[in-house]
Amino acid sequence: MTLHKDVMLDFARDARTGLDEAVMCASKSALHLTTILDQVQEKGRCILLTRLLPEQFVELPVRHRRNIDYEPLSRTGYFGGTRQLKAETQVAVVAAGTSDVAVGREAARTLRFYGEPAVEINDVGVAGLWRLLERVEELRKMRVVIAVAGMDAALPTVIGGLISSVVIGVPTSVGYGVATGGETALRAMLASCSPGLLVTNIDNGFGAACAALRILRTA
Amino acid sequence: MTLHKDVMLDFARDARTGLDEAVMCASKSALHLTTILDQVQEKGRCILLTRLLPEQFVELPVRHRRNIDYEPLSRTGYFGGTRQLKAETQVAVVAAGTSDVAVGREAARTLRFYGEPAVEINDVGVAGLWRLLERVEELRKMRVVIAVAGMDAALPTVIGGLISSVVIGVPTSVGYGVATGGETALRAMLASCSPGLLVTNIDNGFGAACAALRILRTA
Amino acid sequence: MTLHKDVMLDFARDARTGLDEAVMCASKSALHLTTILDQVQEKGRCILLTRLLPEQFVELPVRHRRNIDYEPLSRTGYFGGTRQLKAETQVAVVAAGTSDVAVGREAARTLRFYGEPAVEINDVGVAGLWRLLERVEELRKMRVVIAVAGMDAALPTVIGGLISSVVIGVPTSVGYGVATGGETALRAMLASCSPGLLVTNIDNGFGAACAALRILRTA
Amino acid sequence: MTLHKDVMLDFARDARTGLDEAVMCASKSALHLTTILDQVQEKGRCILLTRLLPEQFVELPVRHRRNIDYEPLSRTGYFGGTRQLKAETQVAVVAAGTSDVAVGREAARTLRFYGEPAVEINDVGVAGLWRLLERVEELRKMRVVIAVAGMDAALPTVIGGLISSVVIGVPTSVGYGVATGGETALRAMLASCSPGLLVTNIDNGFGAACAALRILRTA
Amino acid sequence: MTLHKDVMLDFARDARTGLDEAVMCASKSALHLTTILDQVQEKGRCILLTRLLPEQFVELPVRHRRNIDYEPLSRTGYFGGTRQLKAETQVAVVAAGTSDVAVGREAARTLRFYGEPAVEINDVGVAGLWRLLERVEELRKMRVVIAVAGMDAALPTVIGGLISSVVIGVPTSVGYGVATGGETALRAMLASCSPGLLVTNIDNGFGAACAALRILRTA
Amino acid sequence: MTLHKDVMLDFARDARTGLDEAVMCASKSALHLTTILDQVQEKGRCILLTRLLPEQFVELPVRHRRNIDYEPLSRTGYFGGTRQLKAETQVAVVAAGTSDVAVGREAARTLRFYGEPAVEINDVGVAGLWRLLERVEELRKMRVVIAVAGMDAALPTVIGGLISSVVIGVPTSVGYGVATGGETALRAMLASCSPGLLVTNIDNGFGAACAALRILRTA
Amino acid sequence: MTLHKDVMLDFARDARTGLDEAVMCASKSALHLTTILDQVQEKGRCILLTRLLPEQFVELPVRHRRNIDYEPLSRTGYFGGTRQLKAETQVAVVAAGTSDVAVGREAARTLRFYGEPAVEINDVGVAGLWRLLERVEELRKMRVVIAVAGMDAALPTVIGGLISSVVIGVPTSVGYGVATGGETALRAMLASCSPGLLVTNIDNGFGAACAALRILRTA
Amino acid sequence: MTLHKDVMLDFARDARTGLDEAVMCASKSALHLTTILDQVQEKGRCILLTRLLPEQFVELPVRHRRNIDYEPLSRTGYFGGTRQLKAETQVAVVAAGTSDVAVGREAARTLRFYGEPAVEINDVGVAGLWRLLERVEELRKMRVVIAVAGMDAALPTVIGGLISSVVIGVPTSVGYGVATGGETALRAMLASCSPGLLVTNIDNGFGAACAALRILRTA
Repeated sequence: MTLHKDVMLDFARDARTGLDEAVMCASKSALHLTTILDQVQEKGRCILLTRLLPEQFVELPVRHRRNIDYEPLSRTGYFGGTRQLKAETQVAVVAAGTSDVAVGREAARTLRFYGEPAVEINDVGVAGLWRLLERVEELRKMRVVIAVAGMDAALPTVIGGLISSVVIGVPTSVGYGVATGGETALRAMLASCSPGLLVTNIDNGFGAACAALRILRTA
Repeated sequence: MTLHKDVMLDFARDARTGLDEAVMCASKSALHLTTILDQVQEKGRCILLTRLLPEQFVELPVRHRRNIDYEPLSRTGYFGGTRQLKAETQVAVVAAGTSDVAVGREAARTLRFYGEPAVEINDVGVAGLWRLLERVEELRKMRVVIAVAGMDAALPTVIGGLISSVVIGVPTSVGYGVATGGETALRAMLASCSPGLLVTNIDNGFGAACAALRILRTA
Repeated sequence: MTLHKDVMLDFARDARTGLDEAVMCASKSALHLTTILDQVQEKGRCILLTRLLPEQFVELPVRHRRNIDYEPLSRTGYFGGTRQLKAETQVAVVAAGTSDVAVGREAARTLRFYGEPAVEINDVGVAGLWRLLERVEELRKMRVVIAVAGMDAALPTVIGGLISSVVIGVPTSVGYGVATGGETALRAMLASCSPGLLVTNIDNGFGAACAALRILRTA
Repeated sequence: MTLHKDVMLDFARDARTGLDEAVMCASKSALHLTTILDQVQEKGRCILLTRLLPEQFVELPVRHRRNIDYEPLSRTGYFGGTRQLKAETQVAVVAAGTSDVAVGREAARTLRFYGEPAVEINDVGVAGLWRLLERVEELRKMRVVIAVAGMDAALPTVIGGLISSVVIGVPTSVGYGVATGGETALRAMLASCSPGLLVTNIDNGFGAACAALRILRTA
Repeated sequence: MTLHKDVMLDFARDARTGLDEAVMCASKSALHLTTILDQVQEKGRCILLTRLLPEQFVELPVRHRRNIDYEPLSRTGYFGGTRQLKAETQVAVVAAGTSDVAVGREAARTLRFYGEPAVEINDVGVAGLWRLLERVEELRKMRVVIAVAGMDAALPTVIGGLISSVVIGVPTSVGYGVATGGETALRAMLASCSPGLLVTNIDNGFGAACAALRILRTA
Repeated sequence: MTLHKDVMLDFARDARTGLDEAVMCASKSALHLTTILDQVQEKGRCILLTRLLPEQFVELPVRHRRNIDYEPLSRTGYFGGTRQLKAETQVAVVAAGTSDVAVGREAARTLRFYGEPAVEINDVGVAGLWRLLERVEELRKMRVVIAVAGMDAALPTVIGGLISSVVIGVPTSVGYGVATGGETALRAMLASCSPGLLVTNIDNGFGAACAALRILRTA
Repeated sequence: MTLHKDVMLDFARDARTGLDEAVMCASKSALHLTTILDQVQEKGRCILLTRLLPEQFVELPVRHRRNIDYEPLSRTGYFGGTRQLKAETQVAVVAAGTSDVAVGREAARTLRFYGEPAVEINDVGVAGLWRLLERVEELRKMRVVIAVAGMDAALPTVIGGLISSVVIGVPTSVGYGVATGGETALRAMLASCSPGLLVTNIDNGFGAACAALRILRTA
Repeated sequence: MTLHKDVMLDFARDARTGLDEAVMCASKSALHLTTILDQVQEKGRCILLTRLLPEQFVELPVRHRRNIDYEPLSRTGYFGGTRQLKAETQVAVVAAGTSDVAVGREAARTLRFYGEPAVEINDVGVAGLWRLLERVEELRKMRVVIAVAGMDAALPTVIGGLISSVVIGVPTSVGYGVATGGETALRAMLASCSPGLLVTNIDNGFGAACAALRILRTA
């Protein structure tokens, strides 16, 4: 068995969906990841690595590691560079609690990879409402707000009632007991009484960023 | 089989827990309810009827029906009178949406049965935050706030972060899809990041009122 | 108790979120709905009625009924007119099966109420892939595609891989057994491997339309 | 990236809710915790640390570790001292089984941090009812009883039927099989036939203590 | 298609398991039930009918109806007589709340059909513990105690800790919200800390009685 | 804090329920277990240790370890001896698959601790029916059959239809995917069409043995 | 809106998958069904109607009703005739209990519509094993056995261990309590220890028959 | 206790079901596995080892290890050789994503063990539809297609609508958040609108291969 047979990167996807292939690294072996990066390098492309655990990163060959701009909190890496950052910031990534920042940063880093600067606003959970209210004017100027929250996940609902921009809720697996791995946050967002709130899978900062890119490009 | 054998009201509970027996009527037959009311009348007691459906109410004998102060939205009835209302209002019952009012009123009516006046504040869901913020000062003066909400149930979390009184969350079965009969509202309240939020079963306005009574009496 | 106390329409929401108040009618009594419509009429506003069951519609007073443009499949009504329809169609509403059309139409009717024409494409479930493939070019021209599907809900995933526009998935409660009221469709959409797919609550055609409106306005 | 940007302690919360900020340490890195403690020390405040695992504690710098009164069973730490303990004991923390003691102690330690002495009563599960009945008189004198139980969690129901004080049930994740991480205990408490029983999230001794503090202060 | 082809009563089961065939009537048509009763009558046997709804009973032909000893609360019928009742009462059926009596009576009626007298003790839920404690001596004399309870279902746990007889817990679907159709009662019983508690399906009074019969015969 | 305060063995339980105290060791520390064993030794009692993991066993002090008859597959230990084994074997413990043997042995070892010999019959799952059919005559002679099975757990249903003895089903957590930790086995047993089948918690061989002891003693 | 726009039968599917279009009628209006049948009649085709409730059947126009061979137990109808029945019977449909017959017959009727005769064997649930064992030789001669069972659904597991033919399990929604609408039967079949057992959705007799047709045609 | 007593391989199963015994190794000790292999060797048989983890493999005695053809990705081993491979390839194993390949290979390796060659087609998930469409002609020539997919698992639905062969769906536990260990993939497959799709347990490549073998032999 050769590994190459199992890896078939889809370099044609960009033409169809406007998004380059990204690689979710979590369950892949170092050997498997190396094969992928070799292929990307041969083609002279750049690629976004998501869910690249620190222990996976250090096992990559040095020749690849030094080509990766790695950020451990979000577990993302840029391989072979990124697109040029645009001048205007059109997306805010808002995280409810300290523990939600990792998922928020995955979204922000994905956006930057594709050339969209994104402002990160952290620790504005609704249990301390004043912290959020101080930032509302700033949020109103954005075209898309990605609201990242775990536990009861009330943040995107409250934001959705305060601004007219697009609001994307990303539930996180932060919490214990009834939080059940983000399931409660997810369901609370989907059941939101704030009309027009859109939702992604739990901890899916990458997906929220891709959706934001589709939205910005459609303008 | 005589029905009397199956009915054993617990008139001694008052002495132990400070709460008279109340009767949840929902699954009981008209005959069964009549037997209970006969016993209560014989003893010269008053009793609170909860979950008394309109179709059950009209099937009761006239002699009992005219002794019941019935409120159809909350499906509660006072049989044989209530206690004297106190002068001071110490409890607010806050309902997020129009459909949550029925459960909120069950709580308010239970409190009034036991002599506690309760103010009802409706339609203050967090998707329109300004409606709640206008009432915060009023809420701060209460010793207990019962916050009734379905769907994403963010209301008690937001209130809990704004005031120092006791906050009791009552999830409701309002909603569809992922709301799943109040399960999402319940779990969101329990997972709340607002410290010290207490929660009851879904639609349990009666239970929240009983808890408020225990709290007020402990003072 | 007067009913007016329980109804507090939020005519100020428009200014904040760009969306007029809409009324979900399902669990409201005829009396309650009449009170709401009276208030709307007094202010000279128009309003969107959702989940207005045929049996609720016929119980409304004639004076209100003749002011409602009612569509029974989607259970939506326009009260007091709609906004002017725009010339360009920017949204497609795609339904996988015949039974999903009702939810799709709720989305399309909501869009039209706010002035956005929407094309409806039905019966293009992925079990008969060729039906969808014939429409791909048409979908590529849209800025937003709302994909409505029950059961295994593969439709939005397939669409998301074929076009670069925004794709919003709306799971429906169509199906039996493991479909469990739309839960499987919802989870399949959220777990989609199609990057950037956004999701709403089950059967929430209204919510998907509100999100599309936010997206179109942000352009 | 500097860590300080991600940490924004809310020293103003005390004024609003009467509770100082506490820090849940479980998912935070040693570096992150150190930054928080530095901030607290600078302001000359004290802070409660919850879910501080022994392996986290030993990784803190010595200058902080020696300022922490750490209790490993409850995984709580007092940093920078506590408030003055009151003379009167008004709260009992009752644990059903040996394994529930850790959660009960988290509640008791939280109460003591805020100046409320709390008596702990352990191993009084209802499968050996006589052990509980011997302590009923003592419980009757308390204003609040926090009842901690896993598995079938019958303890708070039985207590709620015996005394008129406030009873707060804390389900624990103790057990295996159908106990499913405390879910059964939680649901059994919420479904309790004991009127006025209030419930918190699974293993949330801290939350129960915060609720008790709100109750005591409202008196 | 003739109906006879679909009905194949198993008159041989008695020899193998010591229990005659019983018929669960709930989802069967009047025609189907009549065919079954015709077969039983031809063989000169008697049979136990369970879950025979009143509306089903009245649709049976008169010739069968007058041979049925029907009890509507438990929805059980004896067709063609019962076995001789034994002199000694060895089983108690204990029901926690008024609404649990129907399930308890199904158990008691099943036992009597097979010749075992059973004492019924109702309204002894643990929220009013003293009612149960008064009956403990009586329960100790029984060889089997069937404890029927919904909601939090603490009754069998408490009984199991007080006596050394066999205790069979029957969860009931009584309750609302988190009671979820008896699921919480079931799980609480299975998670019980009372060693040796045995459990049946929700509302399965018949099954508990069959188990008791196996136990009594094994002696 | 001294550990002794947290440990309160219930030596009086024997008198009430006929079962000595047993100790579930799984989540207890070596220190905690040592304290318990010291107390037991002081009183000159013997005790059954369940869920005593090998890694816990080796951490006990030598003075206790040499007094424990430890069996690693079932993770049970006899401390201080057992009761005299009876001459007659009245209980069979039947395990469906090789992986169910551990749970079955916990049941058998518990029975032997209390003096009841138990025969173990393994690898008789219903996917190879002939293996079970060869043992039916042997099973018919037993008063109680404990049937241990994971996955689809059809074994106790089939046995219950073949013999008239008491059958206790013990679901196990063996399996993957939809087996979900024994939940499917549990529900299949509870939904069994075999009348009179009794069920315990998942993996609860100890509980099944305690129930068998209650049954044997009641004879 | 005209209805025709919403109905788009896929007459080309036959060429691709070898199966004519069938129509699931359950949620369709009489008007909708009439439009479909008109289209089928125009093309001179025949069609299988599934889940056609008796109340739907009687509302169809007489001209269509007399062209339908309707069987109420399985709720299936043949419109416009069926294919020629083959001489050899290669499929057995086995139903565990009387209530499972309706689903089994849906499978048998679907097979006959496509020309495959199918033998139906009912009332052979494994709680009375001898009934099944008498039929094993007959089952061995079939190429496909469709095993229909609710509750604990042990039937297909036992059959799968006795014969070498293809076994397709169809779980049914028969049962109460933990049977939860067929979910337990489904999961028990999927977790079966009988290798090579294949499963369909709950109550999906139609799907099992379609699978059998694919298998027979592949030979 | 000797281990031999616990191991009872069923060498007679081949005669009944046409499939030799295979051994699922995951939860078995090295000692246990060695005993099994000794028995197989004594009888001069060959056996398929599934779920043999690399860490288990290396712990086997060398004498057995060198007789095993081990493939680590699928965690399968052939002990004592395989059957002769047939000339014609009649089964395709299709995997949606890179992470599904392991489960697909378990199916392919099982087929090869029993003499059926199987073609593997990987990385053809429906989010990049064109990759699948290029392979449709090849799939049409197969008698059985095993479609392996996690997350939203749309692959088998799409294939089932394109070809007339038998399609067996194998859901995998690949994914995070709502993917919940393969549960969503499983339910999506079962709810598929593609008629005649058959499904196995999550990650059960072995079971799918056994089903394919039954199908091929029935031809």
